[in-house]
Amino acid sequence: MFDKNTIIQAPMAGIQDAELTIAVCKAGGIGSLAAAMLSPSQLAAEIEKIQIAVANRPYNINFFAHKIHSITADQRQQWLSLLSPYFEKYQIDTDTITNSAGRNPFDENALAILQKYRPPIVSFHFGLPEAKLLNEVKSLGIKIWSSATTVEEAQWLEAQGVDAIIAQGLEAGGHRGMFLTQDLHTQQGLFALLPQIVANVRCPVIAAGGICDYTTVLAAKNLGASAVQVGTAFLLAKECKTSAVHREALLAKKEKITALTNIFSGGLARGIITPFMRELGMINAKALPFPYAGTAINCLKTVAIAQGDNHFSSFWAGQNVALIKPGTAAEIIQRLLHQE
Amino acid sequence: MFDKNTIIQAPMAGIQDAELTIAVCKAGGIGSLAAAMLSPSQLAAEIEKIQIAVANRPYNINFFAHKIHSITADQRQQWLSLLSPYFEKYQIDTDTITNSAGRNPFDENALAILQKYRPPIVSFHFGLPEAKLLNEVKSLGIKIWSSATTVEEAQWLEAQGVDAIIAQGLEAGGHRGMFLTQDLHTQQGLFALLPQIVANVRCPVIAAGGICDYTTVLAAKNLGASAVQVGTAFLLAKECKTSAVHREALLAKKEKITALTNIFSGGLARGIITPFMRELGMINAKALPFPYAGTAINCLKTVAIAQGDNHFSSFWAGQNVALIKPGTAAEIIQRLLHQE
Repeated sequence: MFDKNTIIQAPMAGIQDAELTIAVCKAGGIGSLAAAMLSPSQLAAEIEKIQIAVANRPYNINFFAHKIHSITADQRQQWLSLLSPYFEKYQIDTDTITNSAGRNPFDENALAILQKYRPPIVSFHFGLPEAKLLNEVKSLGIKIWSSATTVEEAQWLEAQGVDAIIAQGLEAGGHRGMFLTQDLHTQQGLFALLPQIVANVRCPVIAAGGICDYTTVLAAKNLGASAVQVGTAFLLAKECKTSAVHREALLAKKEKITALTNIFSGGLARGIITPFMRELGMINAKALPFPYAGTAINCLKTVAIAQGDNHFSSFWAGQNVALIKPGTAAEIIQRLLHQE
Repeated sequence: MFDKNTIIQAPMAGIQDAELTIAVCKAGGIGSLAAAMLSPSQLAAEIEKIQIAVANRPYNINFFAHKIHSITADQRQQWLSLLSPYFEKYQIDTDTITNSAGRNPFDENALAILQKYRPPIVSFHFGLPEAKLLNEVKSLGIKIWSSATTVEEAQWLEAQGVDAIIAQGLEAGGHRGMFLTQDLHTQQGLFALLPQIVANVRCPVIAAGGICDYTTVLAAKNLGASAVQVGTAFLLAKECKTSAVHREALLAKKEKITALTNIFSGGLARGIITPFMRELGMINAKALPFPYAGTAINCLKTVAIAQGDNHFSSFWAGQNVALIKPGTAAEIIQRLLHQE
């Protein structure tokens, strides 16, 4: 499935569209499209663009597969109370905040799109869909990948018959794919997670987290990775829809220290530390479970941005953000494959 | 200072003595001796053994360089109250618990020993001693190393004139050398910390954390390490004084998940998760600052062990503990240098 030069572009929900996927595929990598924040019609339109542009090259469509937890009125009230000083400051009526989830897990609608377009690869984050849906995807001949953050998750994924496992080291930017555990204490750096997963599964293992240049690709291969998945480095790709303020944060000379936080969505995700993260304490027990915390935050973010204020914006990035450079997707892939 | 096969045995306070240092040196590695829990006379005796045995081979004496914080009676009372159910169970009178620190930082007594024996290398953990003492060590022609857990710490150490910096990834077992920060959120996996420190300092960088076999050594070299420091793998060396119960924990088929905890000493350290760590919540804000929390815990540990109970024992280990194997120090070094 992979050759020694396989570079996979990590799907980045809300930050990229088909333009990046296509550019990566044309440069010889495996481009990914993140479906989690697209409507069914948007997703279909993006896949059509990809299929027209990439011909027979492999590409990947990524879905979330999180379980939707019910939340109580009391939980919701605690979260809104915590945020109430911000609502007051930005004059937002909390009655206008819906209880929607924002990011939907893989469902029948998504399956119908896969049945129509049959992409070569589908990857999942936060586990896998229920068996009935998963088997329908498999029956289409689509290769299935998913992320593991522990050896136990990797073994579970292999038992469900995935074609490859993405070992997501603690260094990785964005949301952690944790699904059998929510225990941050036992999450591992790629130096430990990768060789342990390789030792415990038979399927190919894709390394993710901190991979941003030639030496990190080489190190991941030497630890047993069959391929590498790169996210943060592609945030600076010309073809990525990274916002101007996000690019600015990624390129800042200072203040590029990342941390895991749950305040933007309720799920643990790594981004560049912002004043808002410090104000709420990085990981706040009152944040509603993923993805519900995101509803109120998105409301604050939208109102603030309209006033030119990025206080509630997240700047997802992995721990090696200090080592990335701008360029086209093709240039970034060359930097990953060849010593500069 | 280093060649392509340099393996440094990590100093392990309370777990090893000169026997391991000597065995590593004789097998071609750089053996270390941890001084932090030895009295001046014990330290002198161990160094004498090393000097007689290793002839002109390089070896390293490691000291702690932590700042001693004063603690209030109230802080002490809160910590003892938290532990009171254990004191009751083991019938310990808390009035018998002293307020001693247990682990002493590098001082004039230690300097006098260095002046007498002039070891080739001295490494420090938790920063460096004050300038006056450090300059005395430098004036003896001794090479000086210290650990960094952030780029900022590495740059600070280089500015103080160290000869090499140990990049201690989050995967590492035992105490984290953090000294300019106590913020766990910004600690990095070796995949990120190592290349970033290499990019930001001129002196040689020694990789530590998760390095346990041939592939992890190779990956660390790929990421720019001039040498590697290995701890956990040497815990199973025949010549190490690892307790029987610690060896058993290291070799257990299950339950080998590690976490960072502050409950044993007050300092953040990584060990195999134990029921006591879960009871106190891994990281407990009431734990006295390093090293004071250790006084009460050592008292509990001693009384419990006398009853055949290891409830308060720490089983320090890095995140790759699942990959280590027993052997002589020489066999372990061969496993680090050659593909099996």
